[in-house]
Amino acid sequence: MTVDKLKRLVFGEPFRTSQEHHERLDKVRGLAIFASDPISSNAYATEAIMAVLLVLGSSALGMTWAIALAIALLVLIVVFSYIQTILHYPDGGGAYTVAKDNLGTTPSLLAAAALLTDYVLTVSVSVSAGMRAITSAFPELHGFRIVFALTAILILTWMNLRGVRESGTVFALPTYAFVGGVLLMVLVGLARYYGLFGLERIVPEAHPLAAASSLTTFAYIWLILRAFAAGCTALTGIEAISNGVGAFKKPESRNAAQTMVVMAVMAMALFLGISFLATHLNLVPSHTDSILSQLARTVSGSGLLYYWVQFFTMMILILAANTGYQDFPRLSSFLAKDGFMPRWMTNRGDRLVFNGGILTLALVAAVIVIIFRADEIAMLPLYALGVMLSFTLSQAGMVRLMGKISKLKPGESLKTLATTVHHESGWWWKQLVNAFGSLVTLVVFLVLVATKFLEGAWAIALAIPLLVWLFRSIHKHYEDVAETLRTRHLDESNLLEVADVVILPMGDVHRGTLRALRYAKRISSNVRAVCVITSAEQKERLVRRWNRFPKTTEGVSLVCIDYDYRDVLDPLIEYIEHVNKVEFPSELTSVVIPEFITESVLTQILHNQTANILRARLRQYKDIVVIDIPIHINGSDHPPHDSRDKDPYTTEIISE
Amino acid sequence: MTVDKLKRLVFGEPFRTSQEHHERLDKVRGLAIFASDPISSNAYATEAIMAVLLVLGSSALGMTWAIALAIALLVLIVVFSYIQTILHYPDGGGAYTVAKDNLGTTPSLLAAAALLTDYVLTVSVSVSAGMRAITSAFPELHGFRIVFALTAILILTWMNLRGVRESGTVFALPTYAFVGGVLLMVLVGLARYYGLFGLERIVPEAHPLAAASSLTTFAYIWLILRAFAAGCTALTGIEAISNGVGAFKKPESRNAAQTMVVMAVMAMALFLGISFLATHLNLVPSHTDSILSQLARTVSGSGLLYYWVQFFTMMILILAANTGYQDFPRLSSFLAKDGFMPRWMTNRGDRLVFNGGILTLALVAAVIVIIFRADEIAMLPLYALGVMLSFTLSQAGMVRLMGKISKLKPGESLKTLATTVHHESGWWWKQLVNAFGSLVTLVVFLVLVATKFLEGAWAIALAIPLLVWLFRSIHKHYEDVAETLRTRHLDESNLLEVADVVILPMGDVHRGTLRALRYAKRISSNVRAVCVITSAEQKERLVRRWNRFPKTTEGVSLVCIDYDYRDVLDPLIEYIEHVNKVEFPSELTSVVIPEFITESVLTQILHNQTANILRARLRQYKDIVVIDIPIHINGSDHPPHDSRDKDPYTTEIISE
Repeated sequence: MTVDKLKRLVFGEPFRTSQEHHERLDKVRGLAIFASDPISSNAYATEAIMAVLLVLGSSALGMTWAIALAIALLVLIVVFSYIQTILHYPDGGGAYTVAKDNLGTTPSLLAAAALLTDYVLTVSVSVSAGMRAITSAFPELHGFRIVFALTAILILTWMNLRGVRESGTVFALPTYAFVGGVLLMVLVGLARYYGLFGLERIVPEAHPLAAASSLTTFAYIWLILRAFAAGCTALTGIEAISNGVGAFKKPESRNAAQTMVVMAVMAMALFLGISFLATHLNLVPSHTDSILSQLARTVSGSGLLYYWVQFFTMMILILAANTGYQDFPRLSSFLAKDGFMPRWMTNRGDRLVFNGGILTLALVAAVIVIIFRADEIAMLPLYALGVMLSFTLSQAGMVRLMGKISKLKPGESLKTLATTVHHESGWWWKQLVNAFGSLVTLVVFLVLVATKFLEGAWAIALAIPLLVWLFRSIHKHYEDVAETLRTRHLDESNLLEVADVVILPMGDVHRGTLRALRYAKRISSNVRAVCVITSAEQKERLVRRWNRFPKTTEGVSLVCIDYDYRDVLDPLIEYIEHVNKVEFPSELTSVVIPEFITESVLTQILHNQTANILRARLRQYKDIVVIDIPIHINGSDHPPHDSRDKDPYTTEIISE
Repeated sequence: MTVDKLKRLVFGEPFRTSQEHHERLDKVRGLAIFASDPISSNAYATEAIMAVLLVLGSSALGMTWAIALAIALLVLIVVFSYIQTILHYPDGGGAYTVAKDNLGTTPSLLAAAALLTDYVLTVSVSVSAGMRAITSAFPELHGFRIVFALTAILILTWMNLRGVRESGTVFALPTYAFVGGVLLMVLVGLARYYGLFGLERIVPEAHPLAAASSLTTFAYIWLILRAFAAGCTALTGIEAISNGVGAFKKPESRNAAQTMVVMAVMAMALFLGISFLATHLNLVPSHTDSILSQLARTVSGSGLLYYWVQFFTMMILILAANTGYQDFPRLSSFLAKDGFMPRWMTNRGDRLVFNGGILTLALVAAVIVIIFRADEIAMLPLYALGVMLSFTLSQAGMVRLMGKISKLKPGESLKTLATTVHHESGWWWKQLVNAFGSLVTLVVFLVLVATKFLEGAWAIALAIPLLVWLFRSIHKHYEDVAETLRTRHLDESNLLEVADVVILPMGDVHRGTLRALRYAKRISSNVRAVCVITSAEQKERLVRRWNRFPKTTEGVSLVCIDYDYRDVLDPLIEYIEHVNKVEFPSELTSVVIPEFITESVLTQILHNQTANILRARLRQYKDIVVIDIPIHINGSDHPPHDSRDKDPYTTEIISE
């Protein structure tokens, strides 16, 4: 089959289920994988702060540095709080898991909804920012940024459907190249700013004299808060490591915690460096040239370092987007397994990846890119909100967990849903750290909601509860299904009886109806061919043709319904309903429908859709069984055989 | 059922099939009905000529009058030619019928395709022109013309789905009001132009001195031809009467022919009057103000007569569009009956109208209105082409018919497919008229194709052969179907045997599969429950649950297929194919599929679509019967009963 061959060419040979394996990460490669997301925020976080401050006039941009310091402090708190999570959830403690384990269903669903929106935005924002890194370097490409961004999403989707393994080596190069490049740029920039090492000193351009507008104190504070909120995007991705503890080499928790600290230090060093220089070199945000690009150009001219930074900015952003492709399908599959998302989200495709999650993510991210015209600065108000909420819930869960630990005596241990905890001596200060972390992120979350509400945060504030409602509805539905199918206490004798009657709706006597008649007679002794008669000629013709096949029609009742309208299904269904309800109540009634099958979908519309509509209407009845007799028009005998190159399966007959 | 109630509120009570009746038309009302289309062309035909001439400079507009005279001559020829058609096809002789009767299938399909495109354009052009009549009077509405035009199409569609009878009275008012108004305007205009009856003389504004550009003779002739071609839209609708001969009172042919003459005289009187005045009053086409509107304003100021003309222009154009709604579904149903269009085009809806044709027409016409932004002048290059082709074919058919007549001796008669002809003495001059008519319209058709090709005629030149190809493909398909279903020479013993085997694909043992098992055991003694095993736990669980229901599972083979990939349908289908092909070759094999049915379509996507895909794939096999066992999730017992207020039907059991 060519479709199948094409599929295998594009996505590769199918993997066996038993082929699955997990690569364990050392700290260097673990850092590269988990750091791409938080470190890549440096491409836009500083700029996000400045874009808000610019409203106050360009001289207000000087406050960027102070705000960056506040954010770095926040990161410090969050990291120390998360270390506790990592240490207590060696199998991976995402916010969903921690909240489910300690806070109950609703908080866990809230956390999950927050994270899912966050993962989607990780893709949209990172891809858009990555394209901006390139269009900053080559402004003539600015007009193509949406197409580029969508292409990047397409490529990421393809790679993930093929199943990229989280191969540390691939990730290591761009991550370290980016960190190295930006670090070098910051150091050179600092040296040139202070005139050290004999480098040519940079004299900052004076800002055009745009005095800070005279604002009320309240408005002033409001803007500062907004700028702070905007900068909080620097925190996105910091929690990813807590999901992936299980991927580290032993001792998992310890290695993960150490990696997290290094990662945070690295990310903040870059963030503070960029923010310091952007402030002191008096850079001004521009629509077509990112702050990072301006900075690199100012510090190093348009030389190699500039293109190095721009290129690896794009690369690390693409990698950051890729983390969304790892996290979203995984969390979706967890939710689906717990019955909160469609169960097919747990199905793995030919390459052992969660196709459903990958495609859903790609679709939503692409829509967001199109809506925002690939402008990541405009998307940022939607971002960070979900992260802060999940931080808050996750840390609150840890507070509860510490409470449980506090009740344990030395040597005792407690199994929770997702982990096992033992007695610990320092539980009280750890609980304090978590409580403080939870509180601080809650405050930041509220600030984010308040300050960015009108800019777009409302969409997320709406989406999260909506998602929770959706999760709950889906769960309710699956519970109904389970209830319907339950076999516990099922008395086998209570199963529906099968009525000895088969109804065959018929418009004319032809080869198709004759085949259906034969089938019907084979399975029942009470066969009724039912025909809705709309004209005398039709009836005459029908009876004449009926009598031509005495062998097949023998013993079959021919029921004719005279009808003076054209919607022939109504009387037909009424008849079937009558047989089902009055003649054979509470028994399964069978209806045989001959179905024309044509070679192409196009020719299918040439046929009266009567059979399809009849089938759809009969589906509404609980105890009507529809039997489709295929009548192939011009069909080849059998479809071409799919000569899939798999091992022959083994068939075993368990009982006879 | 509320949907049903709503439907009846909007479209009215269903009609009985036996309720159909046909109103016979006298000449006055017949004229009103058939004249709306050709007479309404006066709203744009003159303007279409001028729009082309304007290219030569506004002084070239003076040629409009001469071109109009040439077109009037063409109308004369066509009318006299068509009178023969009317006299020889008293049941109605549309181009499709005449061509089928005399020229064969392909010419008749060409004529049908030409007419169908023409009918669609009648709707698009007339509705757009009608809206222009209104936006000329109220220029502030210009921006809404597309919405207005689409609304008009919607209303027309609704009215026709409800089933407007071709009630002469409704048509008479706007038609005669339009004719009267325009005639009055032309007469007043002429009187004022010549300064008769003491009316204030109109002094034509001098054209701005745009000298005719110096063109080569060829280019000059080319433009004149194009202007002539553009004016030919005045001929559209003239043939409609030949379709509807049967609707006239007796003697049908005579009444229809007389009506046609009066109609042509009326239409041409208006056309020539408008063209004369537009030329001599030096009017210049404008995008927002139609020529007819300019003329009415110049002649009568912006008084009552002006609004009268504009309003009834719109009304008659809507009526003209309505003729498309009469003709398109009728011709489609003819084609469908002959197997050239989908057979459901012959189905009549609750109100005894051809719903399929009406909706198809509305859809295509709406798309054209949107593409052309309701600018009828831009659509005109597509128009008239189809009419001319159908004229040519119809008249060519008449030439052949006259040839047949020529061979008849006095007293002899000949039955053709659609009519009966007798000996006629004057056949030779009638044949000459038809031949001349056919030739002239053929030349005009070629001129139209040549001159308007790039402006849009290419679309029609492409659409017509494409439609013919489509008609033929559909016909071919229906022939295949007939071949497949043919019962002639059918030996009853050659019908496929039914294999005594039922396969039940199964993922787990639950209430649904148990019900399916019970059904399967009822219809066969050889039931096989087939399960694709992807993990050891699944198998263990399955067997354990299987053994819990010994009464139901007794005598059933449980077939387990171990499989290390995730596309479980592949091995399942391979197994079914094996049973079907190897164990029971050339017999009908039954597959029972339990199907979850949820209350809403939305919850349906929550379920693995596995059952649907399995069903779709099994459809490809000629001899596999699929049996759907409904498993309702949370379903109410039965759908609400549709308490349709129809007479109870009568049921008769013919044979037992």
